[in-house]
Amino acid sequence: MPRTLFLSVQDTVKLIQTVGIPEFYRGLLTQLESDYRRWPEFVMAPRSANHSAVGVIELMPTSDADLYSFKYVNGHPQNIQHGLPTVMAFGALAEVATGWPLLLAEMTLLTGVRTATTSAMAAKAVARPDSTTMAMIGCGAQAEFQILAFHHLVGITEVRLFDIDSKAIDKVLSNLSGAPVKLIVATSVAEAVRGADIVTTSTASKQRAAVLDESLLEPGMHLNTIGGDCPGKTELTQGVVASSKVFVEYPPQTRIEGEIQQMPAEFEVTELWKVLSGLASGRDSAEQITLFDSVGYSLEDFSTLVYAHRAANDHSIGSTLDIIPVLDNVKDLFSLLK
Amino acid sequence: MPRTLFLSVQDTVKLIQTVGIPEFYRGLLTQLESDYRRWPEFVMAPRSANHSAVGVIELMPTSDADLYSFKYVNGHPQNIQHGLPTVMAFGALAEVATGWPLLLAEMTLLTGVRTATTSAMAAKAVARPDSTTMAMIGCGAQAEFQILAFHHLVGITEVRLFDIDSKAIDKVLSNLSGAPVKLIVATSVAEAVRGADIVTTSTASKQRAAVLDESLLEPGMHLNTIGGDCPGKTELTQGVVASSKVFVEYPPQTRIEGEIQQMPAEFEVTELWKVLSGLASGRDSAEQITLFDSVGYSLEDFSTLVYAHRAANDHSIGSTLDIIPVLDNVKDLFSLLK
Repeated sequence: MPRTLFLSVQDTVKLIQTVGIPEFYRGLLTQLESDYRRWPEFVMAPRSANHSAVGVIELMPTSDADLYSFKYVNGHPQNIQHGLPTVMAFGALAEVATGWPLLLAEMTLLTGVRTATTSAMAAKAVARPDSTTMAMIGCGAQAEFQILAFHHLVGITEVRLFDIDSKAIDKVLSNLSGAPVKLIVATSVAEAVRGADIVTTSTASKQRAAVLDESLLEPGMHLNTIGGDCPGKTELTQGVVASSKVFVEYPPQTRIEGEIQQMPAEFEVTELWKVLSGLASGRDSAEQITLFDSVGYSLEDFSTLVYAHRAANDHSIGSTLDIIPVLDNVKDLFSLLK
Repeated sequence: MPRTLFLSVQDTVKLIQTVGIPEFYRGLLTQLESDYRRWPEFVMAPRSANHSAVGVIELMPTSDADLYSFKYVNGHPQNIQHGLPTVMAFGALAEVATGWPLLLAEMTLLTGVRTATTSAMAAKAVARPDSTTMAMIGCGAQAEFQILAFHHLVGITEVRLFDIDSKAIDKVLSNLSGAPVKLIVATSVAEAVRGADIVTTSTASKQRAAVLDESLLEPGMHLNTIGGDCPGKTELTQGVVASSKVFVEYPPQTRIEGEIQQMPAEFEVTELWKVLSGLASGRDSAEQITLFDSVGYSLEDFSTLVYAHRAANDHSIGSTLDIIPVLDNVKDLFSLLK
């Protein structure tokens, strides 16, 4: 009989700590790159979204010939008032051949890691290879994950932090006090961005914001925008987008959710998987400004569940979940009640 | 902090046994009828289906203004060869206002109960009220659930069993040996059906089958067809469907998956929720043949999760699942890793 593995929040913490943060990032990056390079093998099912006045609940399914995954994820900006995370997630991995659920896992923490690893994957592919400094605009829940991913995977050694909330900056300084990254507090977006090789924006602005405008751009910068991820929520001016070569995950989704929702439908974008597969060019010159318009794609959750499942089994972390009946005679479901 | 309740398979068994099978059926029926009567309050989201050569994996979401549910369910007919159930399911219930998951539950067993309770709800609404005998054609995993639902909720006291596999009949006789229902083994479909008030078909035939043809119909019968539930899989001849007043769950889905997939797109059907709400007539005469063309609808899973959640809390059954991070500062997701 197969087994359904459960990775609780505490199991996931233990898994990441046991593997080690740098190695966990590297292992997940390898899985992500491998899956992105075989993009056409995946069934890109539309996500199912339930919108209410205060938020959204989504199911994001993906599969290849062997494995199926889905993630449940919400987005409720006002949850902070109730002491709840604005984004909470869990997901499952199953066998296509039988439907058997191999893994059920918390994905709030795993999504934090996967979003940052995907950003780093994009930067490795299209940022200048000699990038060492990053501006981190927005010091919310994603900030530490981004900073460590860019350190361990891209080679960033200096990060300038900015947030309109100084407590958020203090949180990052405290959480990363022992990390091998030089952290510098900036007093403005402009100060943080000036001279940075990479600019990451991860702000919680709810409407069209202009966290970055054209005056802040410098030749050769790579922009990594995390916060513009749903209709009506953007972080860049149109001019910034128009000045950049734009890389995206899945164009139909990014045109609705990403920074390019501000642009005409025919605005040219390059699919990241094609760059990783050698089917499209990445950065065309050292002076070009590149932009990864990140919105988060279900394939990344698939890769994360596959990697977490393998790593958890390798390290014997997690528990067995009694979620599917084990029957001597599979036609005898009622025997459970005898 | 709210709590995510987990109902394992063993918890669900304990819950049904603690409440008692008759009372569990009655409680679920009350919830189902109540939800069916407020059908227009639900968001009927399309299911997401992943089809492969050997089966299907589906996500079935539904919500009203307060609660959101989804069910993961597969259908893999060849699973029996691997010793796995052909249908396995689990699901979740969440708050629309926050996205918080209130319940994660096994649903293989719960789906068995909900399918039978829905059948009984339909029969209560449109079968002859003096019905006492039922033919049970097909003695697979659903049979005992149907028989007990029709006994406890509809008043059926005699059931004639037929299956092409005598071991399946023996299984039902053994499982229901102490039940207050008279069970009679029939040697043919015709023998089982003759004189029966209600005919339930729940066979595993994979293609267009003709488990019932017109020659077997008698005035006033109610047909309850469970086995015809996906494209290409039906149990009745066109003549049987054409001779009946047909009641369905959600017409767009039933026209693809149910017995009426054999009929023209304009074939008239009556929505069960309208009958339950007094907006449409049910049975028009004692002689009319009625047919509930059951395919299973996501609202029924919603009702089942709502009822199971309440009953489990009432009886303190189930455990707390560590699937969403509990954070002092919800912006400090990284603190989990320190």
